Order: sequence, then C-alpha cells, then structure tokens
Amino acid sequence: MSTSVSASALPLSNAIRALAMDAVQKANSGHPGAPMGMADIAEVLWHRHLRHNPANPHWAGRDRFVLSNGHASMLLYSLLHLTGYDVSLDDLKQFRQLHSKTPGHPEIGYTPGVETTTGPLGQGIANAVGMALAEKLLANEFNRPGHEIVNHYTYVFLGDGCLMEGISHEVCSLAGTWGLSKLIVFWDDNGISIDGHVEGWFTENIPERFQAYGWQVISSVDGHNPAAIDAAIGQAQADTQRPTLICCKTVIGKGAPNKQGGHDVHGAPLGDAEIAAARVALGWPYAPFEVPAEVYAAWDAKKTGAESEAAWQQGFAVYARAHPELAAEFTRRMAGDLPADWEAHVAAVLEKLNDKAETIATRKASQNSIEAFAPKLPELLGGSADLTGSNLTNWSGSKAVTRAGHGNYIHYGVREFGMAAIVNGLTLHGGFIPYGGTFLMFSEYARNALRMAALMKQRSIFVFTHDSIGLGEDGPTHQPVEQLATLRLIPHMETWRPCDTVETAIAWAAAIERRDGPTCLAFSRQNLPFVKRDTATQAAIRRGGYVLSEAAGTPQAVLIATGSEIDLALKAQAQLATEGIAVRVVSMPCTNRFDHQDDAYRASVLPQGIVRVAIEAGVTDGWYKYVGLEGAVIGLDRFGESAPAGALFKAFGFTVEHVVATVKGLI
Amino acid sequence: MSTSVSASALPLSNAIRALAMDAVQKANSGHPGAPMGMADIAEVLWHRHLRHNPANPHWAGRDRFVLSNGHASMLLYSLLHLTGYDVSLDDLKQFRQLHSKTPGHPEIGYTPGVETTTGPLGQGIANAVGMALAEKLLANEFNRPGHEIVNHYTYVFLGDGCLMEGISHEVCSLAGTWGLSKLIVFWDDNGISIDGHVEGWFTENIPERFQAYGWQVISSVDGHNPAAIDAAIGQAQADTQRPTLICCKTVIGKGAPNKQGGHDVHGAPLGDAEIAAARVALGWPYAPFEVPAEVYAAWDAKKTGAESEAAWQQGFAVYARAHPELAAEFTRRMAGDLPADWEAHVAAVLEKLNDKAETIATRKASQNSIEAFAPKLPELLGGSADLTGSNLTNWSGSKAVTRAGHGNYIHYGVREFGMAAIVNGLTLHGGFIPYGGTFLMFSEYARNALRMAALMKQRSIFVFTHDSIGLGEDGPTHQPVEQLATLRLIPHMETWRPCDTVETAIAWAAAIERRDGPTCLAFSRQNLPFVKRDTATQAAIRRGGYVLSEAAGTPQAVLIATGSEIDLALKAQAQLATEGIAVRVVSMPCTNRFDHQDDAYRASVLPQGIVRVAIEAGVTDGWYKYVGLEGAVIGLDRFGESAPAGALFKAFGFTVEHVVATVKGLI
Repeated sequence: MSTSVSASALPLSNAIRALAMDAVQKANSGHPGAPMGMADIAEVLWHRHLRHNPANPHWAGRDRFVLSNGHASMLLYSLLHLTGYDVSLDDLKQFRQLHSKTPGHPEIGYTPGVETTTGPLGQGIANAVGMALAEKLLANEFNRPGHEIVNHYTYVFLGDGCLMEGISHEVCSLAGTWGLSKLIVFWDDNGISIDGHVEGWFTENIPERFQAYGWQVISSVDGHNPAAIDAAIGQAQADTQRPTLICCKTVIGKGAPNKQGGHDVHGAPLGDAEIAAARVALGWPYAPFEVPAEVYAAWDAKKTGAESEAAWQQGFAVYARAHPELAAEFTRRMAGDLPADWEAHVAAVLEKLNDKAETIATRKASQNSIEAFAPKLPELLGGSADLTGSNLTNWSGSKAVTRAGHGNYIHYGVREFGMAAIVNGLTLHGGFIPYGGTFLMFSEYARNALRMAALMKQRSIFVFTHDSIGLGEDGPTHQPVEQLATLRLIPHMETWRPCDTVETAIAWAAAIERRDGPTCLAFSRQNLPFVKRDTATQAAIRRGGYVLSEAAGTPQAVLIATGSEIDLALKAQAQLATEGIAVRVVSMPCTNRFDHQDDAYRASVLPQGIVRVAIEAGVTDGWYKYVGLEGAVIGLDRFGESAPAGALFKAFGFTVEHVVATVKGLI
Repeated sequence: MSTSVSASALPLSNAIRALAMDAVQKANSGHPGAPMGMADIAEVLWHRHLRHNPANPHWAGRDRFVLSNGHASMLLYSLLHLTGYDVSLDDLKQFRQLHSKTPGHPEIGYTPGVETTTGPLGQGIANAVGMALAEKLLANEFNRPGHEIVNHYTYVFLGDGCLMEGISHEVCSLAGTWGLSKLIVFWDDNGISIDGHVEGWFTENIPERFQAYGWQVISSVDGHNPAAIDAAIGQAQADTQRPTLICCKTVIGKGAPNKQGGHDVHGAPLGDAEIAAARVALGWPYAPFEVPAEVYAAWDAKKTGAESEAAWQQGFAVYARAHPELAAEFTRRMAGDLPADWEAHVAAVLEKLNDKAETIATRKASQNSIEAFAPKLPELLGGSADLTGSNLTNWSGSKAVTRAGHGNYIHYGVREFGMAAIVNGLTLHGGFIPYGGTFLMFSEYARNALRMAALMKQRSIFVFTHDSIGLGEDGPTHQPVEQLATLRLIPHMETWRPCDTVETAIAWAAAIERRDGPTCLAFSRQNLPFVKRDTATQAAIRRGGYVLSEAAGTPQAVLIATGSEIDLALKAQAQLATEGIAVRVVSMPCTNRFDHQDDAYRASVLPQGIVRVAIEAGVTDGWYKYVGLEGAVIGLDRFGESAPAGALFKAFGFTVEHVVATVKGLI
C-alpha cells in the first residue's frame, strides 16, 4: 500500500479504527462498531486529558478509565497499545485467543491498564461510581492543605445497553445524591443496539433522566468533533458539585463506508472488502496492524505519563515529610495491607468471645465482630441496601457517608445490585475493604456482581442475613432455600455460614484477610447457642470444615451441619449417645475452604466408610458430594412458608427425632 | 369500648388501619406503616373505581390490582376482607401463621384476589407492566367494533423501595415506550425507608424521571385527601396515550399519633399503647378485629361486583354470537388450554426432525421448534433482551410489538430482569404463553424473577442460549459455568439442556405443556450432532433422563451427560467399545424431571453398583447426587477463558481421551 498520505494529518483516532477492524477480522470474532464509533472521543480524552502512566498502571494518582461497554474491548486495547502500555502488536494479533493479553472482554489482571472487568452491561458504570466515591472519601481523609494527594477523575464510556440496564439507574441515582463531580461519563448515543435501531425499545429521554438524578448533562455533543468533545470535558471538569453525562452523538462503525450506522457493524467482523473500503474512506493506507511511526509518536504517553507520576511522587514525598503517619497509612491502605498487629487483635477478640459464650443471632454476632475489628481498620467501609437495622451492618463508630464525602457507612437504599457492584468498584480503586448487606434472598438481585467480584479476585465482602426459613413470618419470598447452595457454586467465592459467635468472628477475619477474592457471609436472624471448643478445634474453623464434637467412642455416623443446624446436630448427637450410638458432628461453615484442604485433612474429618448425614435448611443437591449415595441429606427441596420460625423448622422436619431416625435408618 | 361515634361518619380507610394494626400486633410481626399510610388512597381506588367481583377473583374482565410494596400485605388482606372476598376475620387473625390465607407477603394461590406474589421490591410493578401489556395486546386482538371484551385497568401501589430498585427503571421505561395508558401507579411518597428518612440515599426527582420515560405524572397529590386522589385517578384514566404516575404525599403509619411519620412504624407492631392511642386519634372506638356493620356495608362490593361481571358476561354472550370463533379462542386462551390437536402436531414435528437428522446448534434447533409450534399457538408471545439474532428467539411470523399494541414479539432492550418479571406478568394476566431470551450468563441478572415464576407456579418460559464455554471468544464474563447448576436448584423450576434437535423440540413442548410452572431452556451456540433414537427412547426424553445409547454388553460404567457433552460421551463410548469396555450413555436433559420419576424408572436408568461418570461443561457439585463418592464428574470448577470453543474444550479436558481415561481409572 501507498504511504503517500501524511500520517500527521490524520486524526489519531483512525489508528484505533484500523486496529479494531484488523484485530476483529483476524480473530474472526468481536465488536468493531463501538471502537470505531467512539474512537474520536477516545482520542480527545486519552490524548488531551487522561492522566496516566503507561509504565505504571498501578500508580495511585492516575485517572481511572472504565469501558462500561466492555464488548468494545479493542478500543481499550488499541489505546493501551498506542499510548505505550505493555500491550504489543503481537498481543493485539492474539485478540480473543487462549491465554492472550487481549481477551474478548477487558479482564482485570490479564492486561496492564485494564481497571475493571467489563462486559456484563451496566456494571462498569457501577464500578466507576464506586471508584469515584473512593476517590472522594480518600481525598477528604488524606488530603491536607497544600497536599492534594488524592485528586483524580473517573472517566466512563458506556452505550445504550448500560443505560437500559436497571443497575445504571441504581448507581447513577446514587452518584447524583453523592455529588460525585469527578465522575465524567460519555454516552455513546449511536441509536443502535443488537436488535437494531433502538426506537422500538429505548425511547426514554436520557438528558431528562440524568437531570432528575442531579447530574450535569451536556446534550447533543457531536462525538466526531474533537473541539466539541474537548469543550464538553472542560465543562464537566469545571462542575465541582455534580457528576457529568456527556451525550455524544456518534455513528456506530464510523469509517466503514457501507456498514456504519447499522447494527451489522456491532458485533461481527467487517469482512475484508469492507475493511479495504474503510481504509480508503479513512485515508489510512497502511497494511493490517501497521501503524506509522508518526502516529505512534503522537500517541505515545510514556514520557508525559512518567512526568505526571514523577510530579505526583514528588508531591507525595513532601506530604510524607509533613504528615508521615498519614502517608504511611495511605500507602498501607492503597497496598491493601492489614495493620501489623492484626493477628494478635483477632486472637484477643476470639478469647473474649469464648469468655462471653453468648447465645445470640449470628447477625448480631456479625455486628459484634464488626464492632471489634472496625476500630483497627479505618479502611472498613460498611453499608446496607436499606436494611441496616435488620442486617446489623453498622457499629458504634459508623458515620453515614455524606454528599460532602465524609463517613464510613453507606446507605445504599434499596439497590442490591448497585451496592454489590459499587462495593467492587471501591475495592478496585483501592484504599478500602468495603462490605454491603442485604437479606440472603436478595443476593439474587446482586448475583452477577458477586460473580464479577470472584472473577476479578476482589476483596469484596457481602453480608447476607436472614439466612433460612429461620427468618419466619416474612414467608417464601424472603426465605432463602437455594441461595446458599448457589453462592457456594460461584468459582473462587468463599461462602460462610457460621454457627455461633466464634465461627462468625473467624468468618469475618477470613473475609478481611482474603486479599485475592470475595466472601459471602450468611447470618441467622434467630439466636444460635454458643458452642465450646478447645484451641485446636477453634483453629480448625479456618479450614472451612472440622470436627466440632467428637463421637463418644468409634463413630457410627458423621453428622455434617452448618449455621443454625449445628445445634440440631449436637442435640441429635446427644440423643443418639443416650441410645448407645456414637456419632461425630462436623461443622462445615465454609465448604469452599474445606474443599481446598489437602486429602489427608479432609479424610480425617470425613473418614471413609462411615455413613454421613448432612443437615441444612436448604436444598440438598450440593451435599451429596460429601454424603454420597449411601448417606442422607436432611434439607428443604421446596419453598418455605410464612409462619414463626419454630413452627417452620418443625413442619419441615428439622427436629431431633427426624435426625435421630435418619441416622438409625442408615447405620 | 364505646360505639357512640357514628361509623358512617368515619372514613372507611380507618377500618383498614385498625385491621392492619390489630393483625400485625396479634402476629407480633409485620408492617403496619404502609397500610395505614396508603389506606386513604386504597379507599378511593377500591371503593370508587376498582372493577372487581369478590365472588369471582378470576373473572377475565376485572381490573388488576398489584401491591408492589408487598410488605403492606395487611392493606390488601383488609381490602379483600372488607369488600367481600373469601377472606374472613379469622383469616386475618391468622396473619403470618402456617397454612393461613394471610401469609406475610401476598402469595398468589393462597388468597383469593391476590393477583401476584409480591415482596421482592420492584417486581410487582414489573408484573403489572406485563399485565397492562397483555390487556392492550388482547384488546387489539379480540375486541371488535361494539364489543369491548378486553378493557380493564391495571392499578399499582408502590413505595420508595420499588422506585430505587433497578428493575423499576427497566420496566417503567418500557411502559412509557409502549404507551400503556391503562397502567395507573400510585407512589406512596412518605419519605421513609427502613434506614430512615430517605434524604441521604433517595434524592432523585421522581416526576422528572417518569416524564423522561414518557409517562403522565400527577405530582404532589395529598394522599390523605380523597377528592384529590379521586381527581388524580380521573385524570389518569383520561389519558389514553401514556401510563400515569400519581405521586401521593402520605404520612407513613398515619393514625398512630406518636409513631406516624417515622421509620419505626414501617416494619414492627405498634404495641398495645400506641394502638390504643391510635384508636382514639382515629375516632375508631371498636375492639380489636371489630368492624361495625355499617362500615362493612359501605365497603361491601359483592353486589356491585356481581353486577359488573354480569354486565360483562352479557356483553361477552353477545360477542360470542357475533364472533363465535373469536369468543371460543378468547376463552381457550384465558383458560390456558392448548389447541385440541396439539399432541398430534408435536408428534408430526418430531417425525420431521427425525427425518431431517440435522446437525445444528440447539439455539437454531430452538428457533426451528418455535417456527414449528408458533403457528399453532397465537398465545406464544416471544422476545429477547436485545439478543434476537443470537438467541434466535424470533421466527418467520414474528412481528414486533408496537406502541399501538400489535405484534407477537417483544424487543425488551437490554433489560433481563425486567423482561423476566414482565414475562411473569403476562402469564399472570392470562391469554399468553410468553417466552423471553438472553444469554445463559445473564439469567443471573433476572435470577429472582425466575424464582418468582417458580414460586408463583407460572408458565413462564426462559430461553437461555450460549450455554457453556462453547460460546468461545466472548470469554469468562459471558461463559456460564455455574449457571445451569444454580437454575436446577430453584424449587419447582424445570431446566432443560437438550443435546440435539429432537431433545430441543421436546423441551419446548414440555415447557409449553407445563401449566403449573416455569421452564428454563439452555441452548448451545455451537453445532451439535443429531442422535438417532427409536420410538421408545424418544418417548423417554420427557422423563428428563434416559438411556440414550445402551452398552454393547453388560455395562461396566454409565456415562451421564447433557447438551453438548452428549457427543463427547457417545464418542468415548465408541472408543471404549473398541477396547472391549461396554458403557451405557445416559442423556439427562432435565435433571429436575428425572428426579421426579419413580424409583424403579430411575434405577433402570442408573442401575446400582455400576460406576457412573457425569460429563458437563460446568461446575461439578450437583452431579455427585448421581455419581456418588465412587464415581467421577468431568466438569469445570473454575471460570472460563476467552478463546475459540474448540481450544477451550480441549484445554479444560473435555476430550475423548480424558473421558476414556477416567472411566478406565474407575472400573
């Protein structure tokens, strides 16, 4: 091909368009439409505004960029490549191939510069709201006069899909309430979604909607006019009270002369002929994956990035001299490290709990755990989806997060999905260990955000109270039956259902200490008795499953239970003992942890050849992997009913008599 | 107590207040705040406007009433009792007790007059949008000049919680797009949610938001002023183009002199002292659960209800004479009956599929099934959450549902949760068998609506394509790993994962024929080979699990598989046969159905004493109930990766070699 056209005369955005076309074509899979449509916006933002250092994607002072329409991944990969991140042309050529740096959707941990994993629509903007909130809270906590240590923007690209999703409503409403003025969102208003032109299913007035949320809305920006985009960004940055939505009119697939503006360009390769035509139309006469040196030079952000970070580091050094403790604390917090005396503190807390030996609901035990741990952990950022008094997620030091950006407890309102995805955004930003509460049932509203926390290996903590039919009168709509079992199935998630105050505190400690993954904590509404343990037994709790009460003699059966059913198992054990039948009781507060123990330990807890009976007030399927075809599961494979808890446990067979009869029927 | 105050001088709403206070107090559990706060609105709506017949809650011509804030159940139970439904004072006294007609939240099937089960916030309004859409579509389909057979309102009560939930955004945006002018929604604007006064977490401008959706908004109505409420309802009914939101300023717990207006009145009994004070404040001097005869007389809707229905029935009789076929079809559709020749039609479809023996993706086989069945079933109302071309949920007769209220295919936009709850509303209304599609992964966004379909025993059909890592390059955010397993855990749900065109058609037929429950259909993106079967084997598909390919000789092992892994199992069987190892292949397209077969059948498919190996490209836990501790599961207990499908199956061990080695290691 000719290279007679001067590269310097071309908009840099065409490099994005070309790389996106080429990579999708080579992979024979992917989405060229959004990268080509948003390329001009990306050029203005990344080339003129974004503060980042390609050599250090983890620099705390960087602006955050979130591609909420994650299917436009080639837009982001192109930007990372062009500006100088460790993403090579070869990496781009491996788009969507196994173990590449360029998976189909942006995946945090796979690609330097990717701030969050996106693709499930609406969650990117939700993560971004969490990031922007983190920035605001940290700024207030750590900045001092003359020291703006925390001061960055969070920029978001999103499309129609994100705006249709309910979660966008939840989190954008909160962003308005919180006045997150450093959150700047670009709406790719191209009028196209997968089913075609959106007039038939997306007619709401987006500017009015966001004004209703209390946002600054900049309407009708030509998304292909750099000056207009630049002016809008300036106006967004100038508003110090409100988040900003910049509504960018764009042409999807801009540059593909025959396909642009239609939905065929959204999610399929353009084809060789159309790509050739686009090269002509764009005046981009280079071979596939060829970018001229002048274009690279113009895009290169390594030097400015290094300078930006150096200036910040210099400022931080000055800050550290003026405020050494704050600076050390900021460094610790952003690194995600726990305080040095954490382990000793946990041990002391456990000792007190053993002394108190309280019979309380595990939701109350959870509150006590928070009360015990939070004073050591200013990074603990609590909250609830409007169930504070039920979840008991607050503690004596809780202060509501305000629009001014102070506080350590978030009233999320009745927004479970938004809460969970904001929690993920807070962890992704760094500086916080966030937790959010709702009823275990409504983990379902947040389900995919829990999965995303696991996929992203984030230390998000989800507090789910009212964990069984034991919640009683609210009835089947509120009684989790299958939820615990389904949470346990999320890869890399750890789900705990503790049985008393000590197991609860250890579950909390484990969640806090788990740097590379999320935790679900399931707690009872009703009181559960304290169980005495020796030191070794207590230590074994962290293994997820352990012998809580050994059989009086060679065990003839093993009872496995969790949470509220531990008491039932212990009573059945006692009753069976009176009949001369020795059984062991295994507490299994975290099956996920237990499954990761070595074979020898697992076999020591569940010896081969002894019949096993699992007891849990929920669906039974998941327990057969422990009890096998010869054992039994006492559970609940149906919906609950509205009645006092005691009546329900009895009606559904969670009785000593039933457990005893089941064991006797098997041995 | 004295009865000197004339009952006729009292607002009827105080009967609601008193019953709500008393029932919650007696149950020592429940929510008095909303019933007391919305009692005046309820009086105006139910006493002056609602067209219903307490003697026949199933009358097709009735207005629908949905209590989206389902925790206010005592409001609804009081109304049902007072207007003459089969809900007695004794029933009210049994509020929240086991097997009563008055569970903690309204549960369809438990209480005459309850139109949908509510409690999980936001889903009631979503169901109502489905009902209102059903009404509009049926009116256009069945009404004829001079015959307004279908013509009713759908009224909704909702609170702040519903409006915070993301699903309210999804469905109210659609209601605006569809111009559902007979949808009239009352917002209980009391400024209180469980965490307290909402200023800290709910600041959006609701009137502006709903105007942005294209609704008529009637702002600032005094929710305790009957004339204002009445005028607002008139204005709502007069708008024939837009749904209406009536914003009612109310005082939560109105009538409880010391507690009203605060969040303590939301979800706990008032206590005897406050109830006594409220009786004085309200001028309601009657004993607990006592309602004076005059008040009963004033509330009684039995006579007007019978007259309303009689007039409608008379009109329907005239219609039936003028349009006998339409009338018969309307009656069939509302009864939920299938056409008389349904079974023969299914048989003919299956015969053709066997003749064609096509190797296609099961999502394509699903489209072919729809194409084959839909012409027989005008009640089949399809749709997708903006993935029509991927889900293949449309067919040659699909016509997009329009604002004018015509069509049989709904473009839901990217709104999975809203779609699923609207699907539930469509089934609840009657007249349709609705289905909605998205990727299996995004079943998670809709999760609680799937559960609600099962809890409510509705014939909702959910089409989930791209059912495993077989979707390939989109990567782990889009690759379901645990989703199938979790869907199988929903009580009363039937989840199918067919392996070829015949299993797909039978799964569809089973879903359509299942009158008392919902079905999830999981389909592959990639092609799957056709499997030949004899007649008896084909008939066994409906049992959920069956011997697809018998061992050549006495089986030494049983391979159990589903969907795309059937081909792998059959190839492993063939390979093992060449090595002289006879294994049986069991196809298990619907474990839920298989589990409900009798013991003898299940034992005939999975004989005792023969080692079993399950193969499915998903999490393994659920399969141990079939293979036990001695068998093995070849699955995927981790997240997927972005790569072409073939590369993934190989990388994760879904190979003939691995299956063969696993079997040989066990026998």
